[in-house]
Amino acid sequence: MAQIDQALAYLRANEAPFLEEFKELLRIPGISTLPEHQADVLRTADWLADALRRLKMEAVDIIPTGGHPVVYGESLHAEGKPTILIYGHYDVQPPDPLDEWETPPFEPTVRGENIYARGASDMKGQLFALLKALEALQRQGPYPLNIKFLLEGEEEVGSPNLARFIEEHKRLLACDVVLNCDGSILGPDTPSLIYALRGLAYFEVEIRGPKCDLHSGVFGGAVHNPAQVLCDLLAGMHDADGRVTLPGFYDRVIPLEDDERVATAKLPIQAEHFMELAGVKALWGEKGYTAAERVGARPTLEINGLLSGFTGAGSKTVLPAKAMAKVSMRLVPDQQPDEVAEQLRAYLRRHAPETVTWEVRELVHGPGALLDRNSSYTAAALQALRDTFGAEPLLHREGGSIPVVGHMQRILGVDTVLMGFILPDDGMHSPNEKLHLPTQHRAMQTYVRFLTSLT
Amino acid sequence: MAQIDQALAYLRANEAPFLEEFKELLRIPGISTLPEHQADVLRTADWLADALRRLKMEAVDIIPTGGHPVVYGESLHAEGKPTILIYGHYDVQPPDPLDEWETPPFEPTVRGENIYARGASDMKGQLFALLKALEALQRQGPYPLNIKFLLEGEEEVGSPNLARFIEEHKRLLACDVVLNCDGSILGPDTPSLIYALRGLAYFEVEIRGPKCDLHSGVFGGAVHNPAQVLCDLLAGMHDADGRVTLPGFYDRVIPLEDDERVATAKLPIQAEHFMELAGVKALWGEKGYTAAERVGARPTLEINGLLSGFTGAGSKTVLPAKAMAKVSMRLVPDQQPDEVAEQLRAYLRRHAPETVTWEVRELVHGPGALLDRNSSYTAAALQALRDTFGAEPLLHREGGSIPVVGHMQRILGVDTVLMGFILPDDGMHSPNEKLHLPTQHRAMQTYVRFLTSLT
Repeated sequence: MAQIDQALAYLRANEAPFLEEFKELLRIPGISTLPEHQADVLRTADWLADALRRLKMEAVDIIPTGGHPVVYGESLHAEGKPTILIYGHYDVQPPDPLDEWETPPFEPTVRGENIYARGASDMKGQLFALLKALEALQRQGPYPLNIKFLLEGEEEVGSPNLARFIEEHKRLLACDVVLNCDGSILGPDTPSLIYALRGLAYFEVEIRGPKCDLHSGVFGGAVHNPAQVLCDLLAGMHDADGRVTLPGFYDRVIPLEDDERVATAKLPIQAEHFMELAGVKALWGEKGYTAAERVGARPTLEINGLLSGFTGAGSKTVLPAKAMAKVSMRLVPDQQPDEVAEQLRAYLRRHAPETVTWEVRELVHGPGALLDRNSSYTAAALQALRDTFGAEPLLHREGGSIPVVGHMQRILGVDTVLMGFILPDDGMHSPNEKLHLPTQHRAMQTYVRFLTSLT
Repeated sequence: MAQIDQALAYLRANEAPFLEEFKELLRIPGISTLPEHQADVLRTADWLADALRRLKMEAVDIIPTGGHPVVYGESLHAEGKPTILIYGHYDVQPPDPLDEWETPPFEPTVRGENIYARGASDMKGQLFALLKALEALQRQGPYPLNIKFLLEGEEEVGSPNLARFIEEHKRLLACDVVLNCDGSILGPDTPSLIYALRGLAYFEVEIRGPKCDLHSGVFGGAVHNPAQVLCDLLAGMHDADGRVTLPGFYDRVIPLEDDERVATAKLPIQAEHFMELAGVKALWGEKGYTAAERVGARPTLEINGLLSGFTGAGSKTVLPAKAMAKVSMRLVPDQQPDEVAEQLRAYLRRHAPETVTWEVRELVHGPGALLDRNSSYTAAALQALRDTFGAEPLLHREGGSIPVVGHMQRILGVDTVLMGFILPDDGMHSPNEKLHLPTQHRAMQTYVRFLTSLT
């Protein structure tokens, strides 16, 4: 216990220098989806590899993949103790729309108890908390367990190379449990642990009509407008009850258990929670389910982007040659992304008029996951949260997608403890993303307690 | 008649130097809708004022308006002869999508019998033909009639200041007839004259939902997606018969006369014509009407642009805060743009869900027009076309909008001869816009004949 107390004291004593170091990490614009930021993604990997070396990790390496590289490191000197594989991602989302940021996304700025920057919460802030927890432990003596690091640079683009990387490095990554820091809690004083995740299937749908943009006066009314066709098709993807109309979309959906519905109704994430965070006066969704159920346990379909014709200032009387939508589905067990892709194509085959042609490009695929709520690792995590926050942690489902959790189950045969500390109002993926600094400090403490307690 | 023959000979003798001078005009990127091209719009006005001075026009002036200026000039020495007001516009459409141009839009390039550039046909090529017809006449002696010029720089943004300008300069612009060169013919060997135009009402519709872009996993399924709402609303603006559903949209539409339907059926602009020009395998439109009727005599609604959320390469799992569409209606007599704006708002009030807010911005307004098919000016125009093309010209309706024609009727009380020579495949408003040089030469000849024959 002395090691824990000393580690916690070390964390408390170093808040100020930690913040400066954290800003250094936040300044690197490692946007994985934009080719022009490739060098910045690599710089982030270098920064982390250096950090692992300073933590006395061994075999530290930046391992190439088909896309952005994986950062690896290990410390395997705690004989008879479990081996934990720490998963994280070091890439970030694009910051657009840029003009909505109060301060530039890659110039981290502290206002009140928060620090504002792209990636502050998702997930550089979580990774940084874990690194500092290890630093605090390492200063007190040898690590109390065996540690491996797998830090990827492609999470925000759907981890296209991760499953193959894990397949090809099964031995290197062998472990007893995974700690994934890319998670959230329900509030700064409401510790919680996620036991289910939604999957993701992300597509680009393009409708093509005339061979080039046409004059809307000369052709309007006689040539079918691809933007109109796209709107017709997208509008038809939900019925009046808010259900997705792709053929077979719900066939594989595992219904919510009655006891889960009861537990979900008690969570502090009900209608008001979503309305306040989103800033809307009314909610919407699949009939027969609460908001928490809709985002946690029901599959959904979203339009993530629309582009067609003239979108600049003023007017241009054009009948566009084509129209594009980014469309993605959040999936729940046992929906399969490949099957959903086929359902989307079947819908378009059935409903697209013969006046146009269409194409579906598959961008991201990942299944959902359900985790063991009763393992010793989950128990240790709950205890660490309890000790740090002084409150009983809640178990709940999460609407977002972390495909790696499913990959770890399937390929390495191990469960994941999904313990990150992103707050609901942190604005991840949004302008003015931020991190709550007191919560980050509690994250460091929780990680110290958790890592010390695994036996 | 000697003056005509000498003028025609002059035109033939100067084709090569004319082409070089035309290229000079085409190189100026006078895009009226883009603020960053304001200086280029002014440069075009200067170029034309110089050209008018070289034609011995008097009182040449660049007159400010609320937006881009009007170029004016006059020659009023033909006593007892009619006064013709020559209308044209010197601004051009934006060239995007830029990457679809085979050669840069403002580097005019001759390939075969065509010259490719933004504005080549719409309408610098028409204006230039008229200037050269006047040059040919002026070299042979005094002008055979009185001439005034009104060249505006805002046609491609809907002429927001033109009606007021005409109101405020009624005496300056007083005339017997207007010659508007911003028109088309049905084919290089099919001369034609337009007697009806559609009006235009152009809007930007914005749907706003959450206060910022949200994570589609955390909020997807519970917060109504503005892009989805926009698609629902746009999809609902047409019914299954291709009719516009805005309340009252057809109330003021004057039905086609039976004899017009017979005449329209004989025009060489039937289904195959539209399919070939647009490069589509099937047409679409309002049930019960042919393609020529749909674009000429029926009102239509087009989506000119769509923008929402993430539209870059790759994927971003965002639930957008807002979604925008450019929507425009082509109107036929007696539809009124102001009433259509109210119909659009009524539709949105009725159908927009309470989960979002919406805004309609009015960008361009102009009513349609019906012209006198039996005036002496029309007869003179038909004769000039007949003599030049050696074929009987056709009278027909045009789907595009030229609001100034209505303004001239209403404010100056004069009819317009709408005689331009844009070809159906000239690609105006599209990438690779071009002008057919032999047709431009015939345009010059036709203008010489027409201007000489007015008495």
